[in-house]
Amino acid sequence: MDVRRVEPGLRSESVRRANLSAVARKLHDSGSLSRSQLGVRTGLTRSTIRALIGEFVAADLVSETPGPLGTPGRPSVLVNPNPDRPLALALEIEVDSIAAAIVGFGGRVHQMLRVERPRGELAVEQTVADLSALARRLDGFADVRTEAVGIGVAVAGVVRQPDGLVLLAPNLGWRDVALGHALRQALGSFVPISVANDADLGALAEARRGAARGSDNILYVSGAVGVGGGIIVDGRALAGVAGYGGEVGHLPMEPEGAQCRCGARGCWETLIGEDALLVRAGRAHGGGREAVDAVLADAREDDAAAVEAVEHVCRWLGYGLGGLANVLNPERIVLGGIFGRLEALAGGTIRGELDRHSVRATRELVTVVPAQLAEAAPLLGAAELAFEAFLADPAAWLRPEPTLAIAAGE
Amino acid sequence: MDVRRVEPGLRSESVRRANLSAVARKLHDSGSLSRSQLGVRTGLTRSTIRALIGEFVAADLVSETPGPLGTPGRPSVLVNPNPDRPLALALEIEVDSIAAAIVGFGGRVHQMLRVERPRGELAVEQTVADLSALARRLDGFADVRTEAVGIGVAVAGVVRQPDGLVLLAPNLGWRDVALGHALRQALGSFVPISVANDADLGALAEARRGAARGSDNILYVSGAVGVGGGIIVDGRALAGVAGYGGEVGHLPMEPEGAQCRCGARGCWETLIGEDALLVRAGRAHGGGREAVDAVLADAREDDAAAVEAVEHVCRWLGYGLGGLANVLNPERIVLGGIFGRLEALAGGTIRGELDRHSVRATRELVTVVPAQLAEAAPLLGAAELAFEAFLADPAAWLRPEPTLAIAAGE
Repeated sequence: MDVRRVEPGLRSESVRRANLSAVARKLHDSGSLSRSQLGVRTGLTRSTIRALIGEFVAADLVSETPGPLGTPGRPSVLVNPNPDRPLALALEIEVDSIAAAIVGFGGRVHQMLRVERPRGELAVEQTVADLSALARRLDGFADVRTEAVGIGVAVAGVVRQPDGLVLLAPNLGWRDVALGHALRQALGSFVPISVANDADLGALAEARRGAARGSDNILYVSGAVGVGGGIIVDGRALAGVAGYGGEVGHLPMEPEGAQCRCGARGCWETLIGEDALLVRAGRAHGGGREAVDAVLADAREDDAAAVEAVEHVCRWLGYGLGGLANVLNPERIVLGGIFGRLEALAGGTIRGELDRHSVRATRELVTVVPAQLAEAAPLLGAAELAFEAFLADPAAWLRPEPTLAIAAGE
Repeated sequence: MDVRRVEPGLRSESVRRANLSAVARKLHDSGSLSRSQLGVRTGLTRSTIRALIGEFVAADLVSETPGPLGTPGRPSVLVNPNPDRPLALALEIEVDSIAAAIVGFGGRVHQMLRVERPRGELAVEQTVADLSALARRLDGFADVRTEAVGIGVAVAGVVRQPDGLVLLAPNLGWRDVALGHALRQALGSFVPISVANDADLGALAEARRGAARGSDNILYVSGAVGVGGGIIVDGRALAGVAGYGGEVGHLPMEPEGAQCRCGARGCWETLIGEDALLVRAGRAHGGGREAVDAVLADAREDDAAAVEAVEHVCRWLGYGLGGLANVLNPERIVLGGIFGRLEALAGGTIRGELDRHSVRATRELVTVVPAQLAEAAPLLGAAELAFEAFLADPAAWLRPEPTLAIAAGE
């Protein structure tokens, strides 16, 4: 039921590039695959697969090894992405931590570093300097200059696409920050930098490598100081017209509710964010991760105030999920951040409210699961974002240098 | 930022079919186009366009006529879809009316009939018999048997995809109705029948031929007895895992609110549906179209109760739209049914609440407009649904009969 044609008219010369992209995506998603698995998953013929793989092998982007013995028939050749090239540098800025990782083709995580940061040090310049310093501590950082296809950045804010301007990050106190530009200067890098909302990237990572693998219709909702959402529809990120889609934290829930940092009243975030849990449990506002850990520990020990706070937040969480399920008809709802931990304590409460506030037909088809990648999801999603240009058109990476060398020799 | 590859690997033989589809969609969306316009819009070369058009001409699906004189350079040939073939039969079942239409390739509406029905006669058998009788009154009904590519049905309920089972139509009192099957029997037709939610189809029609033409990210919200929503993301209908996406009428808004026909409490529908307007204005629940007309007329005459009721409903309408805008980041919000009429009376109230309850960056990019196709939108969307199989792969319609004739002669 497409409203308009999604794919442009196809010329024959674009078929090779589309096929290279199909093969690269399958290898990246799965790690290693046999040639015959690649054929089944792409719908391409055996001879086409062989030719395409040949191009990747020549560029040292994949290797081929004999398939496992003991299977009937001729053993199929295994095709393995080269975990060292291309690479992606992933960066993340949250309200109370920053993180950096290097990830290889096929999804191998080479190294991941995270440091907590006090909430008082959130100025843009300081954050960029700290994040740049953290990235340089990564063992493979020198390789990023030569082998990286891109740098992906996850940030807890509303990010404009396609240019990556951080329009508003209420919990960081940022507005209109050209983060990609600042990071490019700090890192001294000429590799493309893409910036996106942390929850959108969390959804992407959970869809490719986590709790929603195999699902095409996903709602990812993650709780921390703020509440973020990432939505995947028919296998594609719901970005909206400028990339702001999925801002579920600012769903209005109580017309006369508490003031939200976004300027409105009664947003979902004021009812289910970290501070809502803390205040409901009688703790100080702004207590952060340690205070949240304490409430959850107390709830496990049946402390009445902590249990009631967990139940209260889980009721509002399930209530809002009911509405979102009606709008999106997802197959999987993935709970990230503190919501994944709340699910372990009071999953029944969340599901009960979801039962009450979603249409039965929709409810019957959706499962609610905790995130698998936990707090690493946005960072791993940032790596996926960095890989995207390569996966969409790997042809550009296949043989630039030989051609240049010939030209130079003439 | 695709999570998974959308297009399968492409073999050369699928290129022709994809290109035929691209051309058919452009012609269907635009009516007539010159060959050079077709080239620009599909990205295909002049010679490819000529060959593809030749196939359509040979099958009598398009004609070519000389382009307008007076333009500089060689006049381009105009390519015109044949409005008589293929055809689509469109049907619609609302709570207080049924409708039928015949629509041709290129969007020409041959005839459209609508009859009001008392709310007491909503039994499935009676409705199917009435709708079948209405369709047979259409002048071109005999041609449907030979020239129709499909029958599309819009229904005010939750419809499962891809099989079109009407799972729940609370305002019709229906549950688990195999409507397509019943209509096939009543119409004596062997043409494929597709059934979908009326608001989803309204969104499709407004996107292709109405107020959201040219937008790829659309939220359509339509008010009648119930409240329906249709969502288009990146040019594609947001269906969700089973086609239930867009059920915005059952967004929870008031935890302790009024009982909704869906079983839950405080759904958006209980705050902004026809009956909410009537009751707030001091009129009887269930008064229907005439009673709504009276409230709107009284509001135009500054009747205090009517004005207050309109304002109240518009506040809740704008409040909910704010949340949906945050989730979807749409470019266009199209108000259908009574909401289009309320917009003319109190559009400022709707937009004011939208201002307050959506993130600024999102708000700045969205315009709120009344539907252009008014109550015809779902019916016209049903025609688009019927055309979909043809538009997706017109090759199957291009030369079946010559081939059969040869086979029969051997």
